Parts: sequence; C-alpha cells; structure tokens
Amino acid sequence: MSTIATVRADYHRVPLPVALADSTHGEMTCFELVTVRISDSDGAEGVGYTYTVGAGGGAIQHMIARDLGPRLIGQAAAKTEALWQQMWWILHYGGRGGQATSAISAVDIALWDLKARKANQPLYVSLGGFDPRVPCYAGGIDLHLPQDELLSQTDRNIDKGFRAIKMKVGRPRLSEDVQRVTAMRAHLGDDFPLMIDANMRWSVDQAIAAARALRECNVAWLEEPTIPDDVHGHARIVRESGVPIAAGENLHSLHEFAQYMRAEAVTYPEPDVTNCGGVTVFMKIAHLAESFNLPVTSHGAHDVTVHLLAAVSNRSYLEAHGFGLDRYLAYPLDIVDGNAIAAERPGHGVEFDWDALAALRV
Amino acid sequence: MSTIATVRADYHRVPLPVALADSTHGEMTCFELVTVRISDSDGAEGVGYTYTVGAGGGAIQHMIARDLGPRLIGQAAAKTEALWQQMWWILHYGGRGGQATSAISAVDIALWDLKARKANQPLYVSLGGFDPRVPCYAGGIDLHLPQDELLSQTDRNIDKGFRAIKMKVGRPRLSEDVQRVTAMRAHLGDDFPLMIDANMRWSVDQAIAAARALRECNVAWLEEPTIPDDVHGHARIVRESGVPIAAGENLHSLHEFAQYMRAEAVTYPEPDVTNCGGVTVFMKIAHLAESFNLPVTSHGAHDVTVHLLAAVSNRSYLEAHGFGLDRYLAYPLDIVDGNAIAAERPGHGVEFDWDALAALRV
Repeated sequence: MSTIATVRADYHRVPLPVALADSTHGEMTCFELVTVRISDSDGAEGVGYTYTVGAGGGAIQHMIARDLGPRLIGQAAAKTEALWQQMWWILHYGGRGGQATSAISAVDIALWDLKARKANQPLYVSLGGFDPRVPCYAGGIDLHLPQDELLSQTDRNIDKGFRAIKMKVGRPRLSEDVQRVTAMRAHLGDDFPLMIDANMRWSVDQAIAAARALRECNVAWLEEPTIPDDVHGHARIVRESGVPIAAGENLHSLHEFAQYMRAEAVTYPEPDVTNCGGVTVFMKIAHLAESFNLPVTSHGAHDVTVHLLAAVSNRSYLEAHGFGLDRYLAYPLDIVDGNAIAAERPGHGVEFDWDALAALRV
Repeated sequence: MSTIATVRADYHRVPLPVALADSTHGEMTCFELVTVRISDSDGAEGVGYTYTVGAGGGAIQHMIARDLGPRLIGQAAAKTEALWQQMWWILHYGGRGGQATSAISAVDIALWDLKARKANQPLYVSLGGFDPRVPCYAGGIDLHLPQDELLSQTDRNIDKGFRAIKMKVGRPRLSEDVQRVTAMRAHLGDDFPLMIDANMRWSVDQAIAAARALRECNVAWLEEPTIPDDVHGHARIVRESGVPIAAGENLHSLHEFAQYMRAEAVTYPEPDVTNCGGVTVFMKIAHLAESFNLPVTSHGAHDVTVHLLAAVSNRSYLEAHGFGLDRYLAYPLDIVDGNAIAAERPGHGVEFDWDALAALRV
C-alpha cells in the first residue's frame, strides 16, 4: 500500500467577479481558497480544497502545513478513516469544529481523490455509485439586487440549464421579502422548485412568522432561518412554520448533524464537504439522513459534492454556487436539463489552473 | 472613550518541566501559548492569552494578527460586548467554535484586563466582586505515574496548601483505576475532596460502569467521562452513574453549555476562559449555571480564572494547573488554606516575563 510522501497547502485570496451580499455576511468582495495537494510514494496525486467567505483561511493553511501535514507523511494513504480520526484528535484541544474541521476537510478530500484515482474510478463510484445525474439548483447570492435584476439573473440561470433556483431573504422588512418571493414565484410559474435562504438572519419567532407569510409562495425549503447553535429553535420552526427547513452549512461535525436530526430540527440536512469534515464525514451525514428518512442536499464546492450526492440514494438537490471558482478550473460543472452530471474521470476530476492561482497566493 | 491603538499577538512553544500524559492526549512535551497585548489611545495596555496542548496555536496567532486585530483598531476599547459579537461574526463562516473561539478568547481577556486596569479595579470586582477567596484544587496530570509517585505528588500538593485534588482515570483496565482511586482515598482520608478525570476516554456504558465501580471512593465529581459531542450520553451518565459529572473544557460556545444544562447533562460546568470565548462568555456561562442552580468550576488559566470565580456566588472549585507557566509569570497563584486568592492589583494582574518568553517565540 502506498504511503503519503508530500502534503502541500496553499492559501489564496480570490477576488469575486462581482461583489456579493447576504443578510449576515454583508458585502463580500473576495473569498479565501486553501488548496491541498498530496502525493504518495508511487508519485500519484490527490487534490483537496476548502474556502471561506473572507477570514480564517490563513489559519486553515497554517494548520494543514504545520499541524497535520508533517504527521501524515509515511502513513498508508488509502486508510482515510484512520487518518481522519488521527487528524481530528491532533487538533481536538481547542478545535472540535471551526477552522480545524475545514483543514481536516481539505486533506480528507485530497486523500479520497487520490484513492479513487488509484482505483481508476470516478469518486462517486468509489463511494457507492447511485446515479451520476444529480438534481441541481442555482444558489443565487442576490439579497442586494433590485427586483428586476433578481429576475433577469434568474432567466440567465434557466438559460444555463438550471431547473431549480434559490434566492436570499432577510431584507430589513418582511414585506420586502414577501414582495420579492411573490414576484419570483409569478415569474417562475407554479411548479418550478424555488428555495429561500435567510442566512441565520431571524429569531425563531421571526422565522416562523416569515415562513407563514410566504406560505402561498410554495417554497421548496427555507434555509438557515436562525443561528445554527439553536437546535431547539430549529425544531420549533420545523413544527410551526409549515415549510421544510434546510440547515447545515455552519455545522462542523457528524455529531451536530445527529443532534439536529434526532431533535427533528431539520428536514433538508445540507452539509458542506469543505467544512463538515470532508468526504469521510459528508458520507456519514448522508447515510445518517437516510436512516432518518431524510433527503440530503449540499452547500458549496459543487465540483466535488456532485460525486457525493451521485453516490447516495437519498440525494436531494446539489447547490451550484462556486464563488467564481470556475475561472480557475479546467472543467466547469456539467449541467443537463436541471441535472449536474458527475464526471467519469478518475477521482473527483477537479483540475485547478495552478498557474492562474499562483498569482492569487498569499 | 479610548480607542484600540495596537493589537499584538505572539506564538510560543513552551516546554513542559516534565512530560505529562492523560488518557486522550497521550504524552505531551510542550504546550503552545499565544499571548495578546492590546494598547489603547491613552497608552494603557491589556494582556490576554490562550494555549493548546500542542497543535493549532500558530493558527490562533494567525487569526488574531490577520483577521481580528486589524479590524479592531480605532474602535472603543471598553465596548467588550460589541467587540465580541463583531469578532464572532468575522470568523463565523468555517468557525463557530474551534480555534476561532480561542483567538477571540485571548483578545477578549486582554480587553477586559484593559478595562479593569483603567477603572483601577481588580478584574473580579469589575465583574461583580463576590469573594476573592476561591476554593481551589490541584489538577494533577498523573495517569502515567506509578501509584507511589501519584501519592507523593499528592503530598507535595497538600504541602503547597491545596485542600482538594483531582487525579486522572482511564487506565487500560478499570481495575487499575479502581485500585489507584481507592489508594488515593485511603491516603487522603474520608472527607478530603477528590475529583477524577477521564479525559473523554470512555463510552457511555463504560463511564457508567466505572462510576459505579468507584462509588465507594466518594469522588466529588467525574470529569469528561466521554466525548463532548454526546450531550445525550452525558445526560444518561448523570442519571445512571450516581456521581456528579463535570464537563466543559472542550465546549466552545455559550450555546453548547446551554445545551448541556437544559439536557441535564452536566452538574459541574467547567468552562475554560481561554477557549470558551473569553471573559465575556465565561461570565455568561457562570450566570447560566446559576439560573440552573448549578455550581461553576473551571479549566486551565487559573491566574485569570480566579478572578472570574471570585466574581460569582455559585463558584465551585478553581482548577489550578498551569502547564508550568508559572516560570514566566511575576506572581504565582496565591493559595491559602485551600483557597486561591484573587489579587487586588488592577486588572487580572497577570504579568508575563516577556524577555523569557521571547526565547520561546516561534
């Protein structure tokens, strides 16, 4: 069995093509990208990455380069579960989530990519292989857009092949949200799947009131209605709002997802493979959701995540939203009739343009 | 109102006087110390710090220096609540705990030190001022010690003025733990407060079995019986073990403590001011515990924490265990008849030997 020979981590600040805004993070002009390249004793390579919306990325790179990488050298590269447990406990004191989990996630993605490449399999097959066609939605970051631009962005997304769309809510007045979502529903027609995302903006009572006010808009789900720390609050929203509830992009362990599911606090778990603990943990969350008779959706990093959802039978929609990372990738996400297609290349098949990224390295 | 002028963060690797070991972290030969010095527009200074048992410290320093510090300059130094909320949200994406919380903790401690110094008050008075004498126990890291050395270390702690002692459990066989705790109980006499700490070693069932096997030893509490992610498991242990349960050194938010308390999963909450979110969050946890009719104990950083427990009426024991940091401090913890005494100097009164620490800077 081959062993880990090198672990390289790079930290980049990537300017956004256009500034984005949501109800919690305000205006975002760049995101941080931390890439990991792991080579083994046979000279094979795996690639992983994680990202942030603007802070903490340097710390993530630091942990991979200083705390994790040196301890991984020489170990069996394919033993992803053993390596994951080791990484979790190296950074456990003061860690147990947060940026430590993003660091572990990036390394774990690289290790799974390496393992699938060496098996000459696409990652989705290595992980189970259910169906390479994954229903997909366009995740618009559009809270700041005037209503006419919101609708024209929507038309562009439909032209790109999307058959489901998410929009942001959480404007200063609920009446504005009602007006915008109502306009979107009228624009899209009755049956087009439309999700809404509040980015933790509301109190529990506000979220329930908003969900009720929006009930006629028939949203597929309401995402992150309140802060992720409030499991009981989410359970109340599930019970009282009358709409499905998605949550998970800010949960950083299998255990946090388990707490949500056993408390009936989420109906669409949405892990982010780059901050929940990597492929290893994302797959456990997906299977946990299956055991609770729940679908699993996703957040971020769609180029890797399409493989994870293509591996499981309870997959719901893949979120397609890449912070403009497409500019630095050899292969954009393949979307056909509303489905994202997991590529048949070995591994996750994501190939960075390292020369272009080098200019953004910090 | 004075504004923040400079934020300086330094990262040190501090060798331990003797190597330590517990059931989870294995052998530890050094710890990491991250210090923060904040000066305001009047030229006053506050000092904060956090630490790890060996990994992640560089990332913490990085977040303070790059992500938090620059955004704090020019803001009102005394508005600790506003600054805390701002820091939490700067690092929230990918954060929400973990090393981000340690970074925030160190800055928050420095801000509270600065505020108390400018008020010319000891920190414990600024925070409430209940009683400067805080019952204190010696937290031995002694799992690796042969039984005779365990007992002689205990005698040295009693000579230093301690009137309560904690020992580690979690040896490979439960019978070894029973033998060692029984020997300690016999050595100390019936009424001497003796705590035990399993450092997350056990499953829930193992913890309950161990607690029952040790019941005749009359321990004051069993600490961290299993992983901190398992709130329901802790609740079972509280219900079924028959001994008080301490937990919290690995919980990194007010909300995590709230989950434990509302689930009746802990009877001695033990936040660590350097990784729970700083003085701001420690005090909220202490008051939350009061609202649940629970005592509050502590983990780590006893030189600062003695002030926090001296401020509240529901304080239980302060843990005294400093990883040998005493060598770099002007004033060692003052212990009289089993009580640690919060100093009457302004602020928390901790003064580092910066020249000696400079040699350990990474």
